[in-house]
Amino acid sequence: MKKNAGYLAALRTLMKEHAIDCVIISGTDPHQSELPPLHWRGREWLTGFESENGTNGTAVVLADKAYVWTDSRYFIQATDQLRDTGFEMMKEDGPDAINLIDWVTENVKEGQTVAIDGMTFSISWAQRLEQELSDNGIKLNDRFAPFDSIWPERPERPKNKLFVHDENIVGESVDSKMSRLMQAVKGELANAVLLSALDDIAWATNVRTAGDIAFSPIFVAYLYVDDSRRILFVDKEKVSVEVDGHLRKYNIEVMPYETVLDFVQTLPKETRLLIDPEKTSRGLYDNLGCTPVFGGADIAKLKSVKNDTMIENVKTAMRKDGVALTRFFMMVEKEYPSGKLTEVGLGKRLREFRLADPSCVDESFAPILGWNEHGAIVHYEATEESDVAISGNGLLLVDSGGQYTYGTTDITRTVSLGTPTDQEKHDFTLVLKGHIALSRAIFPKGTRGGQLDVLARQFLWNEGKAYYHGTGHGVGFFINCHEGPQSIRLNDVPTPLEPGMITSNEPGLYLEGKYGIRTENLIVTRQYETTEFGDFYNFETLTLFPYDTTLIERGIMTQEEIDWVNEYHAKVYSELSPLLNAEEQEWLKSRTQKI
Amino acid sequence: MKKNAGYLAALRTLMKEHAIDCVIISGTDPHQSELPPLHWRGREWLTGFESENGTNGTAVVLADKAYVWTDSRYFIQATDQLRDTGFEMMKEDGPDAINLIDWVTENVKEGQTVAIDGMTFSISWAQRLEQELSDNGIKLNDRFAPFDSIWPERPERPKNKLFVHDENIVGESVDSKMSRLMQAVKGELANAVLLSALDDIAWATNVRTAGDIAFSPIFVAYLYVDDSRRILFVDKEKVSVEVDGHLRKYNIEVMPYETVLDFVQTLPKETRLLIDPEKTSRGLYDNLGCTPVFGGADIAKLKSVKNDTMIENVKTAMRKDGVALTRFFMMVEKEYPSGKLTEVGLGKRLREFRLADPSCVDESFAPILGWNEHGAIVHYEATEESDVAISGNGLLLVDSGGQYTYGTTDITRTVSLGTPTDQEKHDFTLVLKGHIALSRAIFPKGTRGGQLDVLARQFLWNEGKAYYHGTGHGVGFFINCHEGPQSIRLNDVPTPLEPGMITSNEPGLYLEGKYGIRTENLIVTRQYETTEFGDFYNFETLTLFPYDTTLIERGIMTQEEIDWVNEYHAKVYSELSPLLNAEEQEWLKSRTQKI
Repeated sequence: MKKNAGYLAALRTLMKEHAIDCVIISGTDPHQSELPPLHWRGREWLTGFESENGTNGTAVVLADKAYVWTDSRYFIQATDQLRDTGFEMMKEDGPDAINLIDWVTENVKEGQTVAIDGMTFSISWAQRLEQELSDNGIKLNDRFAPFDSIWPERPERPKNKLFVHDENIVGESVDSKMSRLMQAVKGELANAVLLSALDDIAWATNVRTAGDIAFSPIFVAYLYVDDSRRILFVDKEKVSVEVDGHLRKYNIEVMPYETVLDFVQTLPKETRLLIDPEKTSRGLYDNLGCTPVFGGADIAKLKSVKNDTMIENVKTAMRKDGVALTRFFMMVEKEYPSGKLTEVGLGKRLREFRLADPSCVDESFAPILGWNEHGAIVHYEATEESDVAISGNGLLLVDSGGQYTYGTTDITRTVSLGTPTDQEKHDFTLVLKGHIALSRAIFPKGTRGGQLDVLARQFLWNEGKAYYHGTGHGVGFFINCHEGPQSIRLNDVPTPLEPGMITSNEPGLYLEGKYGIRTENLIVTRQYETTEFGDFYNFETLTLFPYDTTLIERGIMTQEEIDWVNEYHAKVYSELSPLLNAEEQEWLKSRTQKI
Repeated sequence: MKKNAGYLAALRTLMKEHAIDCVIISGTDPHQSELPPLHWRGREWLTGFESENGTNGTAVVLADKAYVWTDSRYFIQATDQLRDTGFEMMKEDGPDAINLIDWVTENVKEGQTVAIDGMTFSISWAQRLEQELSDNGIKLNDRFAPFDSIWPERPERPKNKLFVHDENIVGESVDSKMSRLMQAVKGELANAVLLSALDDIAWATNVRTAGDIAFSPIFVAYLYVDDSRRILFVDKEKVSVEVDGHLRKYNIEVMPYETVLDFVQTLPKETRLLIDPEKTSRGLYDNLGCTPVFGGADIAKLKSVKNDTMIENVKTAMRKDGVALTRFFMMVEKEYPSGKLTEVGLGKRLREFRLADPSCVDESFAPILGWNEHGAIVHYEATEESDVAISGNGLLLVDSGGQYTYGTTDITRTVSLGTPTDQEKHDFTLVLKGHIALSRAIFPKGTRGGQLDVLARQFLWNEGKAYYHGTGHGVGFFINCHEGPQSIRLNDVPTPLEPGMITSNEPGLYLEGKYGIRTENLIVTRQYETTEFGDFYNFETLTLFPYDTTLIERGIMTQEEIDWVNEYHAKVYSELSPLLNAEEQEWLKSRTQKI
C-alpha cells in the first residue's frame, strides 16, 4: 500500500476533470522564497519528500507515473523518503542529471496539456517551459492550483505580527529608501515597481516579523511603489499598531494580500512596471494590465550595500555572537571528555547560547555541526538518525549564525578535540592561508568577487586539493543570510564588490569519510586608498572569534600571515573581553595567545 | 581646401544616386580581419586616418557631415590626421564615448535610408544596427559597396603565392583536422560549415602565405566543408603547384574566390550551415540559400589546443627567438653609450636579427620599442615623428615577436640602460612577482583564465598600482599572434584553460610621462597531476630569454620566487648556449647568473 496514494489519486482525479495530462508542482511560493512557509509546501505534503528548505524538489505527475526532481545533496534522503509513495526520484544535477523541462517535453505527447500553478513559478522559468512546450505542440495551462481542494488540512498563510526595524539601527528612513528605489526604477526606464521578493520588501519598509519564514525575519507581502503611491499588500491581521503607525508615517497604504492580482490588472498601460523575472511569479505576470519592464539588478544592489550605521551595528551583533560562541566552545571543551556530547545536542545548546541575548530573534540558518566524517558532507544537518557522539580524536566543524536586530551573523570554526594529526593540521593551515589571503586582498574599484576567489583556493590547488563550493556569499542585514547580487565564487557574477557590501569568506576542504574543514568570517568591502591608478578597496573582517591555534602548522605560514592571525586574535580579545566574566576572559585569553 | 574633398564628394554623389541618406563604412574586410589587406582599406583612403591596423576606425557619412569613430588609443592621432578632411572624430570608448549605432539612429530621420556594405560587417553587428534602425522606422540598404566606383586606384586583392605548412611541423594531417572539424560541426547540430576567418582556414588546410595580411601568414579565402565536399574559395593565381598537389591529396576542390556567394545561394535548405555570426559577413548571410546555424566556439577551440608536435616545434622557435634577442640586446648594450640608438632604428635592427633565421617569415606584430615615457604608452609604435634617441638613464620596453614556420613568438622584456632608480627596480620587481605567480599556478580542470588573472596583479594592487590591459591572450601556431577563445584578463571569458593552449603572461605597469614596464613570456597549459579532487593543470614557460636582473629588488622576493628565476635562467642558458658563439655565450652566462 502506498503511503500517499490517496493524495496522488485526488490530484489525478482533478487533473482528469481539467483535461490535464501532466502537472509540474513547484517547491516554492509566489515570492520564490528559498524557505517557503508551510502553506506553500504542498509538494512536500504530496510526495512525502521533505528537503531542508522545501525548494529543493519539483514534482511531475502524469496519469500513470510520478516523479520528484532534486539535487545531489538529497539523492539518498529522497530515495529513502519516496519509497512506496508512487513517486520516483529524478536527478537534477551530477553526471546522470535529467533536465526536467526536456524530460516533460519528450514524455508528453503533441496536443496534450501540461499544467502548473503560475503563482509558484518564476516568469523566467515558466517562459522556458512554455517555449519548449510550444515548440513541440504541447499546451500549457498555467492556472492549475490544486492544493486548496485536495489538501484538506492545508496550513493557512502565516499570520505573525509585524514589528518595526528601528531606524536608529538601520540608519536610513523609509522615505530615503523609497527615493533611492524610485531612482533605480527610473534608471531601468520604468516608472513603477512591484517587489515580490520578501527580503526586498522587508528592506524597503524597515519592517520585520518572526515566524513567517524559517531563519529570516522577513514577512509574506508584495510592495508596489510609484511616484505617488506606496502600497503594501499584506494580511491585515499581521499589521500591529506600531507598524500601522510606521506605515502611515511613510504614506504606505495597506491592502489585503490577495488583492495584488486585481490591483496589477487595473494598472494602466502607461505604467511601466519594473519586475524581476527571476523573483516575480508567472501568475502575477499573467495578470498585468500595465507594461512590464524586466530588470531589478540595481534594486538588489541597493540592499546589498550597507551604510556606516549598519556596519557599526553589525559589529555589535558580532560581539554578541562572539560571546555566545565563547560560551559554547568553553562548554564543548569542558563536557567533551564525558563522551556524552552529540551533534544534535550541541546544535540545541548553541541555539540557547545565541538566543540568550534578547536582540537575537532566531538562528540565521539551520546550524551545521559535523563531527569527523560528517564534517565532510558540505550541507550536513544532524538528525536523530544520523546523530553521533563526539568522542575520540577528531575535528568538529560548526557553521552557524544568528539573526540579531543589529545584523545577521554567519561563522564557521573547525576545532580539534583530542589530539590533531599532522594531516589535519596541514589541511587546516592550507584553508586558513587562503582565508587570510582573501581577508588581506586590496583591489581596484570594479573588481568582481570571482576575480578574487583564487586567492582563497591557491594554497590548496598547489597541493592538488580543492573545494567546489563558493568562497563567499552576500549577507543581509537582519534579513536573509544569503543575498545577492555579489559573491566570491568559481563562476563569474557580473556585480563588482562595492564599499559596504558584506560577504562571507569561507574556504574549506572535505575528505570524504574522514573530516571536513571550513573557516568562515564575514568581511565588508571598504574604501582603502585613491592613487593615480584609481580607487582601491579592501576588506575589513567583522566576525570576532579565534581560530583553533592547535590546528595551525606554523612552518608553512609566512610572517605576514602569522602577524595577521596575531593581530586578529588581539582584536577578538579586546572586543569580546569586556562582555565576558573572569573565567570566560581567561579562556579567551588562552585561545588568543600569539602564535 | 579639404584634403580628401574629392573623395567625399564622389561618395556623396553616389549616395544621392542611390537615395542613401547616411553610409557607415567599416574598417575591415569580408573576413573580419584585424589587419585587412590594402584592397579593403577604403575607410583609410577616404578619411586619411590611418590607424595601426585599419580596423580601429568606422566612418559615418551624411549629406552635410562626416565622422570617424575610433578608440582611445587613437584619439590624438585621429584628431591630427582628420584635420581638414571634412571628417570629425568621435570617441568609441572612454568617458565621452558615443555609441555609433545609437548616434546614427538619433541623427537619421524616420523614413530615411542608412547604407552599409554588408560584406564588411559581421552578421551580429549588422543585426544590432538593423534592429535599432527598424525600431525607429529607418530603412537599411546593406548592399552599398562604393569603393569600386569612387576609388580609381583601389589596390587589387592580394595575389601572393600559397605554400604548404609542413605536416611534420604541424603534427596533424588535413584529413584529421577535417574529421575533427566535422565532429565539432555536428556537435553544434549542423551538417556543413563555412569558415570565413582567415586563421581558421589556414589552420584547417595547413596552407600559408606571406604578404596577404601584415604580420600573419594567413591568406584571403573561404572554406566550405561537409561530409562529402571540401571547397577552398581562393584566387587561382595564388595556388602554387605544391599547394595544388596538397589540396588534391586531401580532396579539397578549388573554386574562384568571388564564387562563394553564388555557391552558398545554391546550397539546399537541408544543408544546416554552421557560421560564426561574429566572424561571418552580413553580405554572405544575405546570400544563403541553406539553413544557417549560428555557432563556432568549438571550432575556435580546435585551433587553440596545440598537439605535442606543435609544442615541441614552438620550443624550437623559442630557441631561435632567444638567439635573435641575445644578439639584439648585446648590440643594444654595446652601442647604447654612443647615444646614437633610436627607437625606430632599434626596431629595424630587431627585425633583421629575427629574419636572419631562414624559418622566420615575418615579425608577428609591429614591434613596440618604448624608451622611458614612450614605454608608458601601451600600444606605442615608434614613427619618424615620435622617434627619440636612447640616451641617459632609463628603461627600454621591447615587445616583439616572430612568425617562424615552427611557431609564433611574442615576448616583452624591459631593460635598464644606465643606472636604474630604486623606484624602477621596485616596480619592475612587483611586475615580475606577478609574472612568476602566474607562471607557477596550479589549478583544477575547468579553471578559466579570468580566475587566475589576479595572481599576476596582486602585488601591484597591494601598493595601489594597476595595469588595465589583459594579462594573457591566446597565441596561434604560425598564424595570428592573438587568437581566442581563451584569455587571462579582468573580464571573464567562459572558455577554460586546456592542456595544449598557449597563452601570454604579460603583466605590466605604466607611469605616464615616466616609464613603462612589461614582462612577457608565452606559457602552455599542461596536465600536472590527478588527485582525489580531480585533474590539476599547470603552465610550462616556453619563452627563453633572461630578465634584467639589475632591475630586481631582491628584498621583496620570496625564496620560492628567487629559486624560480634562477631555475628559469639556468634553463635559458642551457637551451640557448649551444646555438651561440663564445662571445654570445659569455654575455648570456653573465645575464643568467644566480641572483
